[in-house]
Amino acid sequence: MTFASDNWAGAHPAIADALAEHAAGHAAAYGKSDLDQQVVRRFCDIFERDVAVFFVATGTAANALSLASASRPGGVAFCHAEAHLVEDECGAAEYLTGGTRLAKVHGPLGRMDPQLLERAVGHYPPEFLHAGRPVAVSLTQATEIGTIYSLAQVDAMAEVARRHQLVLHMDGARFANALVALDVSPAEMTWKRGVDILSFGGTKNGCWCAEAVVLFDPDKAAEFAFLHKRAAQLFSKSRFVAAQFDAYLRDDLWLDNARHANAMAGLLAERIRASASARLAWEPEANELFAILHNSDVDRLKNAGVMFYDWNAPEGFDGSMAPDEGICRFVTSFATTEAEIDRFAATIT
Amino acid sequence: MTFASDNWAGAHPAIADALAEHAAGHAAAYGKSDLDQQVVRRFCDIFERDVAVFFVATGTAANALSLASASRPGGVAFCHAEAHLVEDECGAAEYLTGGTRLAKVHGPLGRMDPQLLERAVGHYPPEFLHAGRPVAVSLTQATEIGTIYSLAQVDAMAEVARRHQLVLHMDGARFANALVALDVSPAEMTWKRGVDILSFGGTKNGCWCAEAVVLFDPDKAAEFAFLHKRAAQLFSKSRFVAAQFDAYLRDDLWLDNARHANAMAGLLAERIRASASARLAWEPEANELFAILHNSDVDRLKNAGVMFYDWNAPEGFDGSMAPDEGICRFVTSFATTEAEIDRFAATIT
Amino acid sequence: MTFASDNWAGAHPAIADALAEHAAGHAAAYGKSDLDQQVVRRFCDIFERDVAVFFVATGTAANALSLASASRPGGVAFCHAEAHLVEDECGAAEYLTGGTRLAKVHGPLGRMDPQLLERAVGHYPPEFLHAGRPVAVSLTQATEIGTIYSLAQVDAMAEVARRHQLVLHMDGARFANALVALDVSPAEMTWKRGVDILSFGGTKNGCWCAEAVVLFDPDKAAEFAFLHKRAAQLFSKSRFVAAQFDAYLRDDLWLDNARHANAMAGLLAERIRASASARLAWEPEANELFAILHNSDVDRLKNAGVMFYDWNAPEGFDGSMAPDEGICRFVTSFATTEAEIDRFAATIT
Amino acid sequence: MTFASDNWAGAHPAIADALAEHAAGHAAAYGKSDLDQQVVRRFCDIFERDVAVFFVATGTAANALSLASASRPGGVAFCHAEAHLVEDECGAAEYLTGGTRLAKVHGPLGRMDPQLLERAVGHYPPEFLHAGRPVAVSLTQATEIGTIYSLAQVDAMAEVARRHQLVLHMDGARFANALVALDVSPAEMTWKRGVDILSFGGTKNGCWCAEAVVLFDPDKAAEFAFLHKRAAQLFSKSRFVAAQFDAYLRDDLWLDNARHANAMAGLLAERIRASASARLAWEPEANELFAILHNSDVDRLKNAGVMFYDWNAPEGFDGSMAPDEGICRFVTSFATTEAEIDRFAATIT
Repeated sequence: MTFASDNWAGAHPAIADALAEHAAGHAAAYGKSDLDQQVVRRFCDIFERDVAVFFVATGTAANALSLASASRPGGVAFCHAEAHLVEDECGAAEYLTGGTRLAKVHGPLGRMDPQLLERAVGHYPPEFLHAGRPVAVSLTQATEIGTIYSLAQVDAMAEVARRHQLVLHMDGARFANALVALDVSPAEMTWKRGVDILSFGGTKNGCWCAEAVVLFDPDKAAEFAFLHKRAAQLFSKSRFVAAQFDAYLRDDLWLDNARHANAMAGLLAERIRASASARLAWEPEANELFAILHNSDVDRLKNAGVMFYDWNAPEGFDGSMAPDEGICRFVTSFATTEAEIDRFAATIT
Repeated sequence: MTFASDNWAGAHPAIADALAEHAAGHAAAYGKSDLDQQVVRRFCDIFERDVAVFFVATGTAANALSLASASRPGGVAFCHAEAHLVEDECGAAEYLTGGTRLAKVHGPLGRMDPQLLERAVGHYPPEFLHAGRPVAVSLTQATEIGTIYSLAQVDAMAEVARRHQLVLHMDGARFANALVALDVSPAEMTWKRGVDILSFGGTKNGCWCAEAVVLFDPDKAAEFAFLHKRAAQLFSKSRFVAAQFDAYLRDDLWLDNARHANAMAGLLAERIRASASARLAWEPEANELFAILHNSDVDRLKNAGVMFYDWNAPEGFDGSMAPDEGICRFVTSFATTEAEIDRFAATIT
Repeated sequence: MTFASDNWAGAHPAIADALAEHAAGHAAAYGKSDLDQQVVRRFCDIFERDVAVFFVATGTAANALSLASASRPGGVAFCHAEAHLVEDECGAAEYLTGGTRLAKVHGPLGRMDPQLLERAVGHYPPEFLHAGRPVAVSLTQATEIGTIYSLAQVDAMAEVARRHQLVLHMDGARFANALVALDVSPAEMTWKRGVDILSFGGTKNGCWCAEAVVLFDPDKAAEFAFLHKRAAQLFSKSRFVAAQFDAYLRDDLWLDNARHANAMAGLLAERIRASASARLAWEPEANELFAILHNSDVDRLKNAGVMFYDWNAPEGFDGSMAPDEGICRFVTSFATTEAEIDRFAATIT
Repeated sequence: MTFASDNWAGAHPAIADALAEHAAGHAAAYGKSDLDQQVVRRFCDIFERDVAVFFVATGTAANALSLASASRPGGVAFCHAEAHLVEDECGAAEYLTGGTRLAKVHGPLGRMDPQLLERAVGHYPPEFLHAGRPVAVSLTQATEIGTIYSLAQVDAMAEVARRHQLVLHMDGARFANALVALDVSPAEMTWKRGVDILSFGGTKNGCWCAEAVVLFDPDKAAEFAFLHKRAAQLFSKSRFVAAQFDAYLRDDLWLDNARHANAMAGLLAERIRASASARLAWEPEANELFAILHNSDVDRLKNAGVMFYDWNAPEGFDGSMAPDEGICRFVTSFATTEAEIDRFAATIT
């Protein structure tokens, strides 16, 4: 019963097969193989426009290089105060951008409040050199706490970005989970709303290492290529990332995996609603679920071998929790089974 | 007939199998899984001492982070003028170290001359702040042109490093090829000679993405962990790199692969020696072979589908080449077959 | 009637004279002159211990290099949310440290609250690599809004720093103003409290360009020298900064200047208390005074040629202000005269 | 008898007077004062076009920020192998550019050979990402060894820069000395030849701290302002640098000072030609003179209190020197007197 994280899961069999299938033979290195090129075209199809695609080793690399491509001296990038970018990436963004500051924007349940974003940007008036200058907004879709920006909410972010000529970045470590939850097209959730650059994650959703930066303006590819290589993120046998994406994007595997993960979170939510000893901290919208448990139940579950993490109360949490209760995070993935959830339900009672 | 590069090869079947085998199930992310830990112990066994091991995405990352760990403000690192580090990594070392300079040291056939290294280091007298200060020496084993530092030659590098208290780094993108060529133990080729930090490459020798930084002083691991994470090189599903190394290091697969690649280069050398239209530019010592061909033969071979790269004459090349001749690089790998070489021999005549 | 900033003032006649006096002759460059060395000894006397001193061009340089000397990969430095360091230095700290993050700590009237500092540091648990790690605390004395940390309040900062092994930096752009306000010795306000490194400002208090980094552990000087030179902050004719400090520190000029500036702020406060149209926003403690004025009075004063800046309400301001009122900042300096203040008083009525 | 360096000299009386004259009163900080603006207009007059001007603390800052403004990821800047930029600035350029590499170009007597520059640039073919990419050429005028690029030689540099679309930077730490030696206008020696950005030095020629970056394309000023502030190089009391430049550029003081310094070098050369114990290593062209002396004479002179530095034989030196002889550098300045040179002549005999 592992709900620790979707990156504790392994690789989907179709991904493993794709790697095996492409293991033999020779192909051009550094992203020049036929398979690499074919996968880029597949991304173009999926996003219904020309895009440039760069494979990277980690979501952290995708985020940091996205911001690097948007950065200018004295730059400030805005993200939610609880974003992975600012909370869990060990300063990679500041380091790989050469010092761009991350400014934390607040808002309930993992989403930046557009008015607070506007105010945060306004803190750096264009005529006041000393403050530095806004360069980018990064929103996480799905958010760190399993909620999702509706299209209208993405629009609200984009409107602020557009008004101040900021690059709009989407951290899509759980892009597919958000997409199937909203039931919209990739284009509708991104560039049609004003997103300029995307961290497209495959690892948490069934690949073993498949992350990409997607540039919706392919004219920026020539410049990005230097950022990418210089940051030591250009794989020599790049085609093995391509092979993963090839299988991932084929026959809607990525969407099926995400639907499954989300459905498992839904099922888990049902079980928790029915439970006497746990309740939802807020409604899950993708594949992360947060529940309030009594501390003694937390211990009991952990002793029973259920893997999950304790979590700090996020902004916007209504706060109704006893002193001896805590919030716990449960993450589902393509690999989560109904049986596992049933066993969990039997354990919590 | 692909002799373009050993990173054009795919993955060895045993590596592919290992990935498939570990695809299922759940395991702790970010290098904390049992398999990750087990592979680290395997590295300790192989090197006959406690070592710290960090998996990274690319050889460029391994080199740049190795130097970053050795760097101090105003730092200068010394490497051969034709080293991959300075010629092919797009300034990653300078960038990821925050500005450490790479100083080029000369020497014949890919190896730094110890006297020239001494002189280059001496160019930065300790009392002259303005010049900056030496911090590290990086040697490539095997070198960029398929030669190898003998143990005595590694000793000579280490002596200079020791005298000036410089960190000694070995770029082992083709570590195994050098090791089997010298027929010594990993310990003998590294820390027993004074090497402090090693870029240990598996990708070119049968993995699809398995590179590691090996620290011979494991006390430096705690600090390196921050360099590693901050550079966006900490894989979430790290165990899939571990799985590759697990297979790679099991039953001497890595040594067998390297022996095969070297033997294929030897066979290719035989064929070229026997050929009327090509001759060796210098003797190959590992899995890279450089031959002198007439331009018309180069074209003919390329038209016949032989993949290889033209190369600039390196330092120490004796220069006996006609104006209408050129140097060509042929790289063999674990995947090179005798049949392929026989076909090549038939093509060049 | 210029109350815009103490850096709008010129140079004190004694400082100007010192420059003229040392203009002739030759002396060793780059901080090696007798005068340079003599001034360093003067700093040692003043601080009652061996210190290392590095002259820099700007307070921004002093702050950023102080943090650089404390930084490690993934580092986070804590400062008040309204500190000059984070609000007015255009990302210099992030840039010159290679990406150290500035974490904003709250607290009323320009001073960090020690409990909030403790909580902010606790946000980065040592065992959680992903978050990064605390490296330094920077406190501003006097603060950006003219208040002062009492010795007990400095102790409270130092206690948090010590508990978490963080470097304690003091931004002393207005060091002298704070010192004379507290009426303590330089040693008592700094290293005796636990301050490790100090930005010692002379420019705002009568020099034209005299800023220094003071290291209370002179063993760190050898390393700092590289940071300093590499950041392009080592003056060639360094003795002309030394000449300014020589005059500044001679015969208590620096303390007299600060006492005068503070006294002028006190006089200004009296006049404002007596005024019908203005009131103090909070009590001034050094040489900055913040008053609440009706917008129409602001316009009237500006039209009358009074120079000052509008200011945003800081944290801890009690908020009693009408919608058509605003906070204005008035800064006094060594060059402010009673006559000027009398004229101001006559103007505001 | 001080010939150690022109930065051992003090400040010209007119410069000292200008500082004193502007000491009183108040003026806007951070480069916004009337005097600052007036000096910028003076630069425009002198260069016969609109230019943007940024004052910095050191020549190192001027050089590093000039390159920073030209840099792009993976960038390489070309300079002479003995340039101050690469030999004496402790890695400031690499650091402040975020990792741009300095590639050393050879050529006799301090000047890059245009063919070797072309070849060095050609080492980075545009289609080969891995190598990085050329971004700038930096030439030093006058050179580190007192020679000067003729206008035709500047043209040759500019032609290579133009062909490869590289920014052309001139390190003019001794700009005035070169200018009066060539007897051309500032415009003719810079932008009319293709120079894009200039480090304009005043410190060595009679100021105590007056260095500036001059951008010949003022449209780049808005962006440079961020580089400048972020690098902690924006003086608060900037008008005191302006005051120095005001006096420096008034009534041709800067040209007179340079003519004097050059003339003193000429006089020194005469004396050395007439001497029995010393001879010129090569002909001086500006205010630096290099002589070959017997080691015993070197000792004798130093014991007699003559200040100068030993120097390594530069590229292009004809090499006619006995084992017990050495090259010595003698630098003259605005403050050098005929009497001093006569005393020197009497000492060497």
